[in-house]
This record gives sequence, structure tokens and C-alpha cells, in this order.
Amino acid sequence: MTHQRNVLRSLAALAVAAACAFGLSTASRADEGMWTYSHPPTKLIQKRYGFTPSQAWLDHLRLSSVRIGGGSGSFVSPEGLILTNHHVARMYLQQLSTPEHNYVDDGFYAKTEAQELRVPGAMIEVLTSMKDVTGDVDSAVKTGDTAAQAQQAREAKIAELEKACREGTGLRGDVVKLYGGARYMLYRYKEYTDVRIVMAPEEKAAYFGGDADNFYYPRYDLDFSFLRVYENGKPAHTPEYLKVDPAGVTDGMPIFVSGHPGRTDRLDTLAQLEFLRDVSYPALLDRLKGMDSVLTAYSHKGAREAQEAQSYIFFVHNSIKALTGEYEGLRDPALTAEKARQEKNLRAAVAGNPKLAHYENAWKQIEKSVAWERDHFKEITYEGRAPGAYGLSGVALRILRYSEEVNKPDGQRLNGYHDAQIPGFMRRLKAARPYYKGMDAALLAHDLTVLRDKLGAGNAFVKALLDGKTPARRAEEVMGGTRLDDASYRASLLVNKGSAVKSCKDPLIAFVRLMDPTLRRVDRAVKDHVEAVVQPALTQIANAQFAVYGDDVYPDATGTLRLAFGVVKGYAFDTSEVPYKTTFYGLYNRAYSFDNKGDFQLSKMEELRRDQLDLKTPMDFVCTGDITGGNSGSPIVDREGKLVGLVFDGNPQSNPNTFVYSEKVARCVAVDTPAILQALNKLYGASRVAGELTAAAR
Amino acid sequence: MTHQRNVLRSLAALAVAAACAFGLSTASRADEGMWTYSHPPTKLIQKRYGFTPSQAWLDHLRLSSVRIGGGSGSFVSPEGLILTNHHVARMYLQQLSTPEHNYVDDGFYAKTEAQELRVPGAMIEVLTSMKDVTGDVDSAVKTGDTAAQAQQAREAKIAELEKACREGTGLRGDVVKLYGGARYMLYRYKEYTDVRIVMAPEEKAAYFGGDADNFYYPRYDLDFSFLRVYENGKPAHTPEYLKVDPAGVTDGMPIFVSGHPGRTDRLDTLAQLEFLRDVSYPALLDRLKGMDSVLTAYSHKGAREAQEAQSYIFFVHNSIKALTGEYEGLRDPALTAEKARQEKNLRAAVAGNPKLAHYENAWKQIEKSVAWERDHFKEITYEGRAPGAYGLSGVALRILRYSEEVNKPDGQRLNGYHDAQIPGFMRRLKAARPYYKGMDAALLAHDLTVLRDKLGAGNAFVKALLDGKTPARRAEEVMGGTRLDDASYRASLLVNKGSAVKSCKDPLIAFVRLMDPTLRRVDRAVKDHVEAVVQPALTQIANAQFAVYGDDVYPDATGTLRLAFGVVKGYAFDTSEVPYKTTFYGLYNRAYSFDNKGDFQLSKMEELRRDQLDLKTPMDFVCTGDITGGNSGSPIVDREGKLVGLVFDGNPQSNPNTFVYSEKVARCVAVDTPAILQALNKLYGASRVAGELTAAAR
Repeated sequence: MTHQRNVLRSLAALAVAAACAFGLSTASRADEGMWTYSHPPTKLIQKRYGFTPSQAWLDHLRLSSVRIGGGSGSFVSPEGLILTNHHVARMYLQQLSTPEHNYVDDGFYAKTEAQELRVPGAMIEVLTSMKDVTGDVDSAVKTGDTAAQAQQAREAKIAELEKACREGTGLRGDVVKLYGGARYMLYRYKEYTDVRIVMAPEEKAAYFGGDADNFYYPRYDLDFSFLRVYENGKPAHTPEYLKVDPAGVTDGMPIFVSGHPGRTDRLDTLAQLEFLRDVSYPALLDRLKGMDSVLTAYSHKGAREAQEAQSYIFFVHNSIKALTGEYEGLRDPALTAEKARQEKNLRAAVAGNPKLAHYENAWKQIEKSVAWERDHFKEITYEGRAPGAYGLSGVALRILRYSEEVNKPDGQRLNGYHDAQIPGFMRRLKAARPYYKGMDAALLAHDLTVLRDKLGAGNAFVKALLDGKTPARRAEEVMGGTRLDDASYRASLLVNKGSAVKSCKDPLIAFVRLMDPTLRRVDRAVKDHVEAVVQPALTQIANAQFAVYGDDVYPDATGTLRLAFGVVKGYAFDTSEVPYKTTFYGLYNRAYSFDNKGDFQLSKMEELRRDQLDLKTPMDFVCTGDITGGNSGSPIVDREGKLVGLVFDGNPQSNPNTFVYSEKVARCVAVDTPAILQALNKLYGASRVAGELTAAAR
Repeated sequence: MTHQRNVLRSLAALAVAAACAFGLSTASRADEGMWTYSHPPTKLIQKRYGFTPSQAWLDHLRLSSVRIGGGSGSFVSPEGLILTNHHVARMYLQQLSTPEHNYVDDGFYAKTEAQELRVPGAMIEVLTSMKDVTGDVDSAVKTGDTAAQAQQAREAKIAELEKACREGTGLRGDVVKLYGGARYMLYRYKEYTDVRIVMAPEEKAAYFGGDADNFYYPRYDLDFSFLRVYENGKPAHTPEYLKVDPAGVTDGMPIFVSGHPGRTDRLDTLAQLEFLRDVSYPALLDRLKGMDSVLTAYSHKGAREAQEAQSYIFFVHNSIKALTGEYEGLRDPALTAEKARQEKNLRAAVAGNPKLAHYENAWKQIEKSVAWERDHFKEITYEGRAPGAYGLSGVALRILRYSEEVNKPDGQRLNGYHDAQIPGFMRRLKAARPYYKGMDAALLAHDLTVLRDKLGAGNAFVKALLDGKTPARRAEEVMGGTRLDDASYRASLLVNKGSAVKSCKDPLIAFVRLMDPTLRRVDRAVKDHVEAVVQPALTQIANAQFAVYGDDVYPDATGTLRLAFGVVKGYAFDTSEVPYKTTFYGLYNRAYSFDNKGDFQLSKMEELRRDQLDLKTPMDFVCTGDITGGNSGSPIVDREGKLVGLVFDGNPQSNPNTFVYSEKVARCVAVDTPAILQALNKLYGASRVAGELTAAAR
């Protein structure tokens, strides 16, 4: 499934060139592109499908689309009802589960509004408006600035623009860097912070086929769930919502996808792709496999531990399968050859044009920067990343940094601690969500072991962190003694600009205090040698492309709202044909073909209520829309803007789309709307939700 | 499907080294090998599955197995009832169809014994005994014989042995060359010549998924049919038959396959494989694609033409798909590398052993012969093969040659015209089976066009055949005027050793009379430069292998009865898992996933009687048994010798098995017995057949 694969990537950001990579692609051909709503591909859609989306059509779709953490969703009723994937809401379901109620395994259905369950710390966002601020950001840079100074000046200006947005409109503003910095957009968001769970199927039904079938097709998954946003304790009024079409898709139907693709590297330079292939991907996969072992061992300790680790293991497996697919794509010589061809053509066009010739240096700058990264990869990877960063260690580090950063002028702070970002920061850290100290200790011990093995026991950073103890002992010590899993304790440290942190004796705070100077030093070096060099080079390449190909191009994905388009369509694969859709018949076939065992076991309701189903009902389908991780939960609409499907995955052939789009066999995988209604009505008796959808669609 | 792909191959035999290729393989590992019943792999089976088949067990399975043209089958009742594939009986169904009754499309069921339909010209054979005659054959060669003389002497001895068998036992005897001539076996056959059709499903049910799903898995095909052999106008008494187990297979169950694999090239030398890859396969695929165009155009002329061409098109598509798969395998550098490795090891072992060192010359001899073939490929291909050989042209050529050969001493005749072979020859030529002159003319015109284009209009052979006319005109002339489609006319030409042929003015006889001297000249050249050189070289290599690896090896397939073994087992493919079996649910899923259209349309009975089916019933399954083309219709039995499945295809990954066996993903695809019973009872109301199976299994 295509949710969140970029989340882990962003954690490893310091280590991978990808973090500052971008792209810019000519899109004259094919159902290609993750287009911004400020620059929609209306001409291309008209050319390919004889339909020109109006501004009202576009505004309606954008305002009906929502961002949910690393995933997507859409409003499907005027009372704040949201449709997204089960696997997007999965973390919420686990968070609310108790020893008595496992909502991941058993599903959840609120028969009444009163039973809808609030998720602490959750937030859902709607992109309300967009403004080009390229001129403002660029004007901050003064003639004669060094690259590092220019970078700093832009960061300060961005913080200022975001702060002014909050103060002027009450809305959060994010300045989004597109085309590697050739364009800056201020995106304003409405934030919903009262998020409740309405309905979710059993995980066996949502994730039928498990890890084997993940990133695969044909599929037989009911990967949907319903959330609702509230305001002032009541369902929010959301007049912009999508009407659900109970008929779903037909073969060959043009469709549109509105969602939040996380990251693509479509037009990384060849040097960057080779670095990803040779260095970043192998290291990242190695790390994930290490985490997998630790988490699996932890989950075997008992039922409680298994439940705690469930979502994390799910996420790690999902990431391994996605990244393995991308890595395979990167190692395909045809892909590298195609990249080399594109790059050669652009460089030739640049070299042949006296007005552009000065851009030629950009590729060389990037090559130089990549060479520096290769030379410093070990340091970047093992001294630039906080051990145990995902769990409470990460919380501790954020609290420590808050206490330091918030006392500096806004323009000089680390990103994440600017004034405009503080409300979200506070909400996340103060939310009463569960932490699992035992699991965090196991992961921290593993990270410390890797650090020691890679850097050597004599390394100063390793010695400081281990404090003369074994990794396991040290991890138990700091995790066992910390109180940071208590929301009120966290809140107490955050009052008065974190003044209590300095003298705080919490062992985890003390532990991250030991590591932060090293982390900051490496971060600074990467900023100076990579970001400060690469960003202006990429901006130049982007401008070269505008000059050569015109501006009818889309930027690489950045986790912000995009519009993709395409058509419902099967494909040839291996020596046979893959159909455009599947049916409930196929679910029962695949289950019984594996003797209804393991990952292919039917859910309880699927077994109990089979006879109530019309088995011919379409279940999942594929289309050519250009998506990637982060698009999970995206609505798929028809020309009339009606919701006909719900993105939840890509087929294996779509993995190399991170680097090169292919329409021939790469497909977006979605749940068909008839399957959602069939499941609500026949499997789960969720008539309240089905009724709300039907009424809203009238 | 794996029926008959070798038939076309054998037609192109003159052109391909494969015709005299052979193999010999060590089989210490894996579920590998198509073993002879005279040398069964009992130790290997014991080692892998803890079961030692007794001689009685082996005899029973052998005597229950039958050969049906290019396919296989088995007795399933003591009254001569035979289970085979629908696609093995397909040609029979077409042969008996009329404008009113299309038994291919609509299926066939004889409600009473009296309704069982006799198939003119059909024959079914049972291997009753085997005798090693290597010494007899080798003793015919005299010291000092040239290679060509030795070849001739062996052929004469073989004809003598076959004739003696017929005269001594009344049974037909075939001397079978194994291990490239290192072993000769006399196989004695009981022949059944009264063959009737009992029951066949609709083709849409038997061949669901059509060409797309052919050689594919998962599959949802009811590819079975029932025939019955008669003696003296009554059902034959067949006390050796297999009991059908209605429970079918389970995951991991050891299984045994008894059938007639047509051809493998497992241990061709590298030089031979490279020739197949570079020359034979491209040429053969080219030819098939040409035939496909001609047949498709012909079938578009009208309903009658479509019905006439139906089986032929089916066969050509099947061959294209199979050969394309094999060709892909051949072009896989890993396959060639593996072959090179095996050959290098054997040659090193030979070179290092003074007793074997003289064998080293064998590979060089083969290389020399392959070089000759490369040099003469055009001549061999276009002057060594009768144009239009499949249809009435082939009939004419056989009648002409009969009239010449049968007047020579038995030992000097062309193969196919020896005394022992004459009864079968007569039966086939005199059978009142339909010929389609329009279709034959179209194919002949195409072949003549290709000849002219490849050899040039000035070529003597081309000039003689075209006789100053266009290919189309010439083909119409000879086909329009011939009476050879009339069985009684054919019979009249065959009386009195074909004495009437010499003065026969039938235009098709006259036409083949023009071509035969050239065909014979090329045939002679190939025998002298290829067969006479390659055969002794291959015999030496085989003996070298016996010396190095011992005799626990199996010979390459030769269309004779073999025993394979393995286990019921799914496999990992692409990024997911393929199950060991499918169910009827899957049939309906795949149909409705394609909106019940085209090759994925349900049969009439599958639509009408769906509600009567238990959809959980297993349909098809896969196992590791080592099979190839010709195994279609083979029974799959369990340890107790009960029939649990019916071979009908291989998955795409099994295509390279022609050259190298792989257990990892290559699979044999079979119909599960519960599907056969479910279809008989619930879809087709064929209670008489189901009852006979059940009674016989008691």
C-alpha cells in the first residue's frame, strides 16, 4: 500500500540525496504527472479525454480533498464524514485499542454518532488557497551572499511568510518549494484537530493477502475506513464534499485522482540516482531489515507486545516491499539509460544556447556534492541520525531542541521550531497517545549496537552514548527511567519556553543531550556541502528546463495536494492478461486456493455473511493515474466529480515510477465504490454510514 | 496446453538439429526426470518421498496409460473408458462436427452407449512390454562401415526387428532410440482402432481464458473429455485401469505422472542449442506466424471456413505460444551459461581419463555438423520441406512414396514405409476423415509464395513447382483438380503396391512428383552430413556420461511412455504468491473481471448452472512433476495409484524445461478430479459417466 513509505524516507533524510532531490518533467505524452492545482493540466486532459475541467470543478475537488498524516482522503458528506483507507486510519485504530478491544483485528463501527471515537493528537488538513511567493523568497537573498548565507536568508523569509499567514488569516501557511526551488508557493490549510473514527472493516478484510499481496494486483481488499471531523464538539459542516457513485467504474473510463503523493525523483540527475542506487537504498533496506528482526522478536514475547508492535511491523514490511521494488527499478539498466538519455539531451540544448550555457555548471556542482556525500556517508548515516528516533528518543530530542530553538530569533531556528510551526508541534507532543517503552528500548538497543559495530567501540560518539554499558543495558536504563510517556509530564517541560528542560534530570532527556551536538554538527555539514550546493544547482536546471521545454511541466511530488488523471485499464503481464477489475468471487477463490489459511484467511464477517453478498460485485480495480506513496486514501472521481474509487496501492510495476513514469504496465490500485457499499450494507450492517453516503449523493 | 507442440516440430524436423538431438541427465537432485518404465527412479522416489513403487504398482500404471496421437490418457473403467484432455480429443470433436452440430463449441455427451460416436482413423495405444535390443542393433554395424553405411545398417536391423515383432506377437513393435542411440528398446504396443467419443465439455469451459491463459497459471479450465475403445463392436475389456479419487489433491501431496512427453533437449551440446536459438526457432516462429495470417484470413471468409480452420488455428496459436516461451528460455544468458558449465565439466572429466579421452572428438564432430547445417540452412528449409505438407499435399506425397518404397527390400526403404509400419499407414490414409481443399489451397499458395521469395523466381525448384503461374493460381489448380479428399479414391491408389500411382494423372500427385526428387536429395544430404555424424557422436557422449556419472540417469523425451514424480506445490512469483490450486469461485471471478467477454466468457452451462455448483470445489492445481508437450492428458496418481489429477498444461516458467529443468517455479498444470466430477454431475448432467467412474473406483 502506498501510504507513508515516504515517512521512513524522511527520517533517513540526512543520509540520502533524495531529501533535497526534485524533479521537473515534460508531460506532452501519456497519463503522466502529479500536477499542482495552481497549474492544472487542463489542455492535456482536453487533448486526451475531450474534457476541460472548469475552475469550479477543480476548486470543488481540491476543497473536498484532505491530508491525513502521510496519507490522503476526502469528504463524502456535508457533516464532515471522510473516506480514506483502512491502512491510513490503522494507526488510529491501534492507538484506541485496549486489551479488551482490538479494533485493528475486529474492525470498528459506531452505531450512533455518540459512539464515534476521538483520536488524540490526530489532525486533518484541507488546502484552502495557494499563492506564488517565489519573488518574496528570492528577494531575501542579497547580491554577494555565499550559498550558505543565501540558504539561511531564504529559510528566514519562509518562516516570516508562514508566521504572517497565521497572524493574518488564522490559517496555517506552508511555503512549499517546487521545481527544486524555482517556484515557492504559500499553501494555506484549514486544520481539523477533532478527528473521530466512524467505521473500519476487520484488518483481514482490508488487508487480505497480507505482505505477499501488498503492492500487488489483482487484489481483493476492502481497504477503506470512515473518519469524521468535528468542530466545537459537533460534526463539522463541510459543504464541499464528493458524492459517492454507487455504480463505480467501467472499463476505459477517464478518471481523476486528488491526493498527496509524498516523494518522486523523476528528474534527479544521473549522479543523484546512482548515489541512491549504490549507497542510499542498500543502507536503508539494511536498516529496515534490522528493525524487522527486532520488532518480530519483541512481538513474540507475548500478546501485549504483539499488539504494541503490530502497526510498526506492518509499516516496516510495507516499506521493505516498496523500497525493494524501487531499488529493483533503479538497478534496471534500461532505467538508468533512459535517465542518461534525458540528461544528455537537456545538457546539449543548454550548451547549444548562449543564453543558457552558464547553467551547464549545475550538473557539475551536483556531481561534486554527491562525491562529498559518498565520502562522508558513514558519518552522515551513523553520527547524523538519532538512535531510536521513532519513539520516545525522538520525543526527548524534540523537547530538548524546543527549549533551545524557541529562545532564538524566528529566522535563525531549525526548521520545525518556527513560530508558525509551534501550535502543531505542541498539539502533537501534548496528545495523550500511547508510547511503548519496552519496544522503544529494544529498537534503541539495536540502533546502539549498529552504531558501535559500524563506528567502532572507540569512537567518541559511541563511547558517550553507551557510557561504559552494553547497548541493551544502556537502552533499558534510559527507557526504564524516563517519564516522557506521560503526556502531562511532557506538557510540564514545554511551559515557559521549555525553561525546565535545562535542569531536567530525566534520563532520556539527559541521553539526547549527549547526542545533540554531534547531530547538529553533521546536520550543519550536510546543509553546507549538500543542500546549499544542490539547491541553487537544481534551481538552475529547473530554469533550464523551463527555457527549453516551456512551462507545461509538473514538479516532483512533495507531499502536497496534486491532481493526476488517466483511465481505468487492465494490462498484459507475463504471458497473459490482467483484468481491469476484480470481484468478490475472486476474494473467495484466493482464500480457498490457499485453503483459507495465513494471510489468505477470510475475515470473520466475510466467512459468516458470504451468502448475503452479490459475488459479482466489483471489488478492486486498476487505472493509469500517476500516483505514489502518500496517495493512499485519495478519491478517484469521474468527469462529473463523483467519487468512483479509492486509491490504496500500486502494482509492482509502478514502483519504478518514483524515477520514471510508465503507462504501459504501471497501475494505481483502488477499491471500487460498489465494494464499499456492499461491505457496509451486507458484511458490516453499517447502515448509518451507507445511509449518510446515499443521502449525501442525492 | 502441452499437447502436440512436438507435432509441428517434427514436420520441421529436416530443418532443425533438434530432430536428432537427445539428452541424458544426472538426476540426483530435485523432482526431475521423465523416466522410462524399464529404468524407473525407485531409489530417488524412496529418498525424496519415502515410498518405493513396487513392480506391480509400476506395471499397473503403465498398462493403464494410453497414447492418443500426440497426447496421453488413461483407462478409468474396466469397460475401456478413457480420460484425456478436451484439447487432445478436440480434433476428433471437430472431425465429427457438422453444420448442424458443432461439438467443439457445444460439447458432446452420449446419454447411452449407442450414442457414443466413432472417430474414423483414430488409434489408441498401450505399451504392453519393453525389451532391450541395443546389442541386436549394434551388431548390424560391420567394422569398416562408413558412418552412412553404419546408419543404413542400423535402420535395416530396426525394420527387421519391428517386422519380426509383428509377425511373432501380433503386436506392433517400435524400436525406440534412447540416450541418442546408446540404448535401443523394442516397445510393443496393443493398438485400439475403434475409438469413440463419450463426453466432452464445451470448449469455452475446457479452454476458458483462450490463447491469453494458455501456458499460464492460475487457470480455471475443465480441460477433460472421455473416450472409449471398442473391440468387436463392444466396449473393450480393460482390467488395468485407474480408480478416480473424488477427493483430488492436497497441498504437498507426492504425485506421479504417467504420459508421453514428446521432445526435450536437456543435454544437447552447446553448439546445438546455439543453432536452435540463432536459426531454428526464429525460422519456425516466422513460419507459424505466416500460417496464422493465412488461416485467419481464410476463417473470415464465412461460417464454414471458420469451422474448418478452427482446430488448425488453435494448434498454430498453441505452438506459437509454446515455442515463444522456449525461445525466450533459449535466449536467457543464464540458461546458456548453465549449459556451458555442464558441458565444460563433462569434457574435463573425459579429457582427464585416459579410457575416455577418445570421446573428446565427439563434441568437435557435432560442431562440424552444426556448421554444415548453418551453411545449408536455406536449402534444407526451403528445398527440403514439402510445401503445404500438412494437408492433402502431404497425403499425395505419402501415396507417391508408398508406390516407390514398398517395391524395395524392407531394409532399404525410407522410414515410415517398412513392412511393420504399413498397417498403420493404410489405416490412416484410408480413414474417411474430412479434408478441406480451400484451406489447403490457401496454405499451399502461401508456402509457394515464401519459396519464391526466399529462393528467387529463377530457382529451378521454384520454377518447376510454379509452372509459370502465380502461387495462388497454381495452388488452386492442383487442389481444385485433385480427388485425394475422397477416401475410396485414395484406397484405389494404394492397392497392388500402388501400381496405379505411376500413371496417375491426379494434379496433386503430379505436383508432388515434381518436388520429390529435390526433397529426397536434401533428405539424403542431411542424413549424410548431420544424422550420420551426429548420432555416433551423441552415442559417444552418452557413453561418456554413463562412465562419468553412472547409469542413474534418464533419457531425453522421445514421445514414448515415461514416469515423472513430484509434489503438489504453489510458488512465489513476481512479488507475490501463486496458490497450489484454484476453485470454481476463481472461474467466475476471472470471467466477470473481464465483464464476461471474449476469451473470458463463461460457457453456456457455466452461466446456466452456476447456482448448482459448490464454488469452493477445487478446479485446477500445480505440481512439480517434470513434463512437456505430449504429456497432455496424462493421469496424475497418488501413492496408492489412484487418479487425482489430469495434466493439461505447464506454467510459462516451465517452457525452458525443454532445455533445463527447474523445480523452483516451473510447474505442471492439471485439472483436479473434484472438478471433473462436479462438472459431470452439476454442469452437464453426465450421470452415466460419473456413475461408471464411481462404480469403477469401488
